[in-house]
Amino acid sequence: MFPARSPVLALSLGEPAGIGPDIALMAWLRRVELSLPPFFITGDAACLRARAVHLGLDVPVEECAPADAAGIFVHSLPVVPAGPAVTALPGRPDASSGPAARAAIDAAVAFVQSGEAAAVVTNPISKAVLYADGFSFPGHTEYLAYLSGDTSLRPVMMIWSPLLAVIPATIHVPLADVPRLLTHDLLVETGRIAARDLTARFGLLHPRLAFCGLNPHAGEEGTIGREDEDITRPAVETLRLEGIDARGPFPADTLFHAAARENYDVAIGAYHDQVLAPAKTLAFESAVNVTLGLPFVRTSPDHGTAFGIAGTGTANPASLIEAIRLARRLADHGDAL
Amino acid sequence: MFPARSPVLALSLGEPAGIGPDIALMAWLRRVELSLPPFFITGDAACLRARAVHLGLDVPVEECAPADAAGIFVHSLPVVPAGPAVTALPGRPDASSGPAARAAIDAAVAFVQSGEAAAVVTNPISKAVLYADGFSFPGHTEYLAYLSGDTSLRPVMMIWSPLLAVIPATIHVPLADVPRLLTHDLLVETGRIAARDLTARFGLLHPRLAFCGLNPHAGEEGTIGREDEDITRPAVETLRLEGIDARGPFPADTLFHAAARENYDVAIGAYHDQVLAPAKTLAFESAVNVTLGLPFVRTSPDHGTAFGIAGTGTANPASLIEAIRLARRLADHGDAL
Repeated sequence: MFPARSPVLALSLGEPAGIGPDIALMAWLRRVELSLPPFFITGDAACLRARAVHLGLDVPVEECAPADAAGIFVHSLPVVPAGPAVTALPGRPDASSGPAARAAIDAAVAFVQSGEAAAVVTNPISKAVLYADGFSFPGHTEYLAYLSGDTSLRPVMMIWSPLLAVIPATIHVPLADVPRLLTHDLLVETGRIAARDLTARFGLLHPRLAFCGLNPHAGEEGTIGREDEDITRPAVETLRLEGIDARGPFPADTLFHAAARENYDVAIGAYHDQVLAPAKTLAFESAVNVTLGLPFVRTSPDHGTAFGIAGTGTANPASLIEAIRLARRLADHGDAL
Repeated sequence: MFPARSPVLALSLGEPAGIGPDIALMAWLRRVELSLPPFFITGDAACLRARAVHLGLDVPVEECAPADAAGIFVHSLPVVPAGPAVTALPGRPDASSGPAARAAIDAAVAFVQSGEAAAVVTNPISKAVLYADGFSFPGHTEYLAYLSGDTSLRPVMMIWSPLLAVIPATIHVPLADVPRLLTHDLLVETGRIAARDLTARFGLLHPRLAFCGLNPHAGEEGTIGREDEDITRPAVETLRLEGIDARGPFPADTLFHAAARENYDVAIGAYHDQVLAPAKTLAFESAVNVTLGLPFVRTSPDHGTAFGIAGTGTANPASLIEAIRLARRLADHGDAL
């Protein structure tokens, strides 16, 4: 019916001293068992070869161009070279870490922009390492928005699993700042981006957005804080006037049991723990971080570099595997439109 | 080995126009199937008889004294008369509601204090109805502390299920007030009461208390808000110096999956939604509200009066049934000490 834009995903190496290389190797080993879509890694092939030896994993690593990756994926882990040679050892980031991690992201984004990759999957990076290297973005997501070249973009983080999808309207800010940051415009913009991408990428014709109240019991009609009546409810109303199926504000404590989850496609929380705690209660190993609002598909495992277990063989590739699968699904859906 | 203090539990009628009468009747009907411990209701027997007829439930209701309740429970629902005749209909509270609900609580507490009941289980009340009747306590829990006669008591609400027990250190307050209310003394006092009652009532010799950070990722060492380093961590340290196994502060989002829950007996959150959202995600129908810090055992179903479905037969007695079971277990353990 339509040609897939690219048969292969670009997976950035991530922080080379973290578990990114471990879980990439482990995911590739399970490609047949799990029918994983083909991917190539952007980064230093020697780093991956060394990690495979270190872990005792039988993974042939082959450098290639993106166009050859899908064919190679059958028998070897394809790596499209990017960045400097890595000298960091597992658990011990060094001066090569930052440039290697950053070059891997840059290359993955360049390939999705050129059409040589269908989507970007990013392995975890260390913000502390990157900051020491002169990186000035709050995180991965903002850097990807910058690389996309459109300064008007506001990327939105969604944590997705088959059981529950959530978006925190504010993220890594002190709780005391949340009431001030939670504005009508923020909620409306978040709702618009969520609705658009749930249709464009996830194929939901009429996505249902459930907004959490800021206060306990969503403020009990203004008796426990005014924000839910003064900010969240009008924002929901604005979205409804635009034809978006926004609902709420709902008490967050009763929004996440199985019966309640049937009534919406994504829950939009006022702040981090309100929605990420339920999301990780239900799907700790397999939740995926998806960035909405970008001109390309980007997913990521929902965990960090885990320096403490890098190179030990105990890292769990479940979230990366789900991120790879979801990236493929979202890219295919976008192609079908 | 030891005589049980009383063979029977006192269950207050609750708001008579709510679902309290419905779920009390439904619970009694399942007494054999579920091996429920005997209980009597404090309140107006005619209200319960009328509700049984209304719902088409075959429940003989018999007025009695507490001492006769266990024997009657086998064949009839025992009711120890308390309060005025109820004129309120299902879903329609009236002037009899407040006095009836309050008298039922007063009687249940009097019986547990006299030893004629082993523990108190309370059906839901309507704060709005009681306020209109001149009630001046913030809620059920504070009224019970008042009735206990010890003005130094600070009752602590715990939401318990077999999967997870949680305590919010602050409860029904605007989120914007939480950072100011979350003091060292509050956390230490909450931890002490939790530790004491988890030992005295739940039989845990060395209860493990996990404190949630206030901020996302528990503040990431002070980079996302200072409270977790300046308030919560010192409070945990104070408790540890007292020999209490307090831990944290932990990032709340990764504290509630199955593997994490193995590491503590109760999670103490900074605020309502942080811990009640995960608790109700895992156990929506069956979570029980337990009041710690009282001189007697008190449990309650973890839901409200549900006026909208009172008298319809659709109320779910699951949480009341769990509250009855837990009250018996806690009372028996206290007797065994």
